Amino acid sequence: MSAQQLDVLGIGNAIVDVIAKSDDQTLADLNLAKGAMQLIEETDIAPIYAAMGPGQERSGGSAANTIAGIASFGGRTGFIGRVASDEFGQIFTHDIRSIGVEFASKPVSGGDPTARCLIFVTPDGERTMNTFLGCSPALDKQEITPEHIEQAKILYLEGYLFDRDEAKAAFYAACDIAKTADTLISLTLSDTFCVERHRDAFLDLIETHIDILFANEDELQALTGATDTVNAAIKLAGENKTVVMTRGAEGSFISHRSEKHHILPQPVQEVVDTTGAGDLYAAGFLYGYAQGHKIETCGTLGSIAAAEVISHIGARPEISLHELAKANKLV
Amino acid sequence: MSAQQLDVLGIGNAIVDVIAKSDDQTLADLNLAKGAMQLIEETDIAPIYAAMGPGQERSGGSAANTIAGIASFGGRTGFIGRVASDEFGQIFTHDIRSIGVEFASKPVSGGDPTARCLIFVTPDGERTMNTFLGCSPALDKQEITPEHIEQAKILYLEGYLFDRDEAKAAFYAACDIAKTADTLISLTLSDTFCVERHRDAFLDLIETHIDILFANEDELQALTGATDTVNAAIKLAGENKTVVMTRGAEGSFISHRSEKHHILPQPVQEVVDTTGAGDLYAAGFLYGYAQGHKIETCGTLGSIAAAEVISHIGARPEISLHELAKANKLV
Repeated sequence: MSAQQLDVLGIGNAIVDVIAKSDDQTLADLNLAKGAMQLIEETDIAPIYAAMGPGQERSGGSAANTIAGIASFGGRTGFIGRVASDEFGQIFTHDIRSIGVEFASKPVSGGDPTARCLIFVTPDGERTMNTFLGCSPALDKQEITPEHIEQAKILYLEGYLFDRDEAKAAFYAACDIAKTADTLISLTLSDTFCVERHRDAFLDLIETHIDILFANEDELQALTGATDTVNAAIKLAGENKTVVMTRGAEGSFISHRSEKHHILPQPVQEVVDTTGAGDLYAAGFLYGYAQGHKIETCGTLGSIAAAEVISHIGARPEISLHELAKANKLV
Repeated sequence: MSAQQLDVLGIGNAIVDVIAKSDDQTLADLNLAKGAMQLIEETDIAPIYAAMGPGQERSGGSAANTIAGIASFGGRTGFIGRVASDEFGQIFTHDIRSIGVEFASKPVSGGDPTARCLIFVTPDGERTMNTFLGCSPALDKQEITPEHIEQAKILYLEGYLFDRDEAKAAFYAACDIAKTADTLISLTLSDTFCVERHRDAFLDLIETHIDILFANEDELQALTGATDTVNAAIKLAGENKTVVMTRGAEGSFISHRSEKHHILPQPVQEVVDTTGAGDLYAAGFLYGYAQGHKIETCGTLGSIAAAEVISHIGARPEISLHELAKANKLV
């Protein structure tokens, strides 16, 4: 492990979130499925944006949020993702570097703009996301930098990127480098619809390459067809994989070799915005795992990071997760 | 008044705020005067931005914040300000229109980008601002639309714009239209340094054109040279002007014809970010004034709007000021 200077290297979409408070009626008027993430085209942005209230812009992206969370715990991290040379690209690049993440991707010029996600947050804290991926998913094999993967303990892949063939090829290229370098490979399924679109490809990738899989219950159902998700997680994990299943307000379940853990959620005073809950759970788990903590502690670190991020607007931590973990006597 | 369909029309800088939490040491390292606003060049952005933590982007601009506040009270408002055809320009335009403000200014192409303000918020809630004005202050007489001024009860001018001759000429043009249309003219001095840079020009404008002047104690001192600011406010107001002086945690003082009022501040649980305090005070006052409320009520409306905005990050209200005013039995 002596050459490994990063705990986790993430590969995912580089997105700026545009977040506005909303009511259920607005979602109904726009025909948006509450709680879901839908991909939109550039021409869809204007009518959806026009129906939003005043926004706040924050860096987002699922794997990028996870990496930001690990950095907040004090982990050493890197991120690979595509931004354009525009203002949103500057925001994304600045924010991720400002928290100490190694982000070497160069902005690309002349094509699609930086990705953005229009997020409606309803009074119940639920988020409904509309993502224009812009230049992000055209991630090419050439943009996967072997030196970053080789020096990481864990590679973390964002399922959302599977929506484009170039990115899928880049994932396999990254996995090959990781295998050779003895870097563990983790994946988040990201979204039910994303799983439905790419079920067989995901099953193949998981079977052949993945060491740690993150999914929520719906995603695991979509992937396996099983209704008993705990058993599905155990079966998928088998002898040599780790499956981490988040269950919203129920907490999480982890199947890791012979170990099975039900992890309780952490209390939250008020759920303000659930954006990033799964991303930050993965941050806590991966940070703990990279540090060699017990699996149960990894899960609890996930729970406290998720609880922090849903207690405010935005998908990245607003306080030091390292301090929070210390206060909870977890590190 | 039958033709007047707007309570207040604002003319000011169209700015997107980039807000990050900071500590005092960072300000010292960057040699920034805590609590002040400094104008920066485009080349200054990179080193200052690089020293900031992860940001939140929100629409800002002093007069624009005031107009947003009046809209939140339920007032009918318009705004004139320059944005470029870039992402920050889209954010500004979207946010101000989304709250019902009439904003007819077209984005300009090919020149400077949309203005941005890099804001460091320290743990005491104080904000330190670094403003790159971009395309904003090149406001031209041609961009002052008479039909909007003519239909407003009150015109509201942002002192910051006085830093450019074109904009100064545009102010005088706007004032002339207002006088003819029987529209009251109000001005905010904006900033001590701004006053020092343009003291004589401000005194001339106030003497000849201004009906309602907003200033804090420091600005009034810079303008008049007097140390007894209450007496300076009374003297400046004279027989036919209204001078509204904000005094931070002390509240405010208003001299309006024969009336003199000391207004208490509203209680705030925690001062999180003082950005926009003066802007929102002006919003409450102008809303009340346009609605024909007593001067004392106008001041109290200002105090409750200021208290709301300093209790969270960002310079625009996050809850309905109309509901807040109702809850305080002011409307």
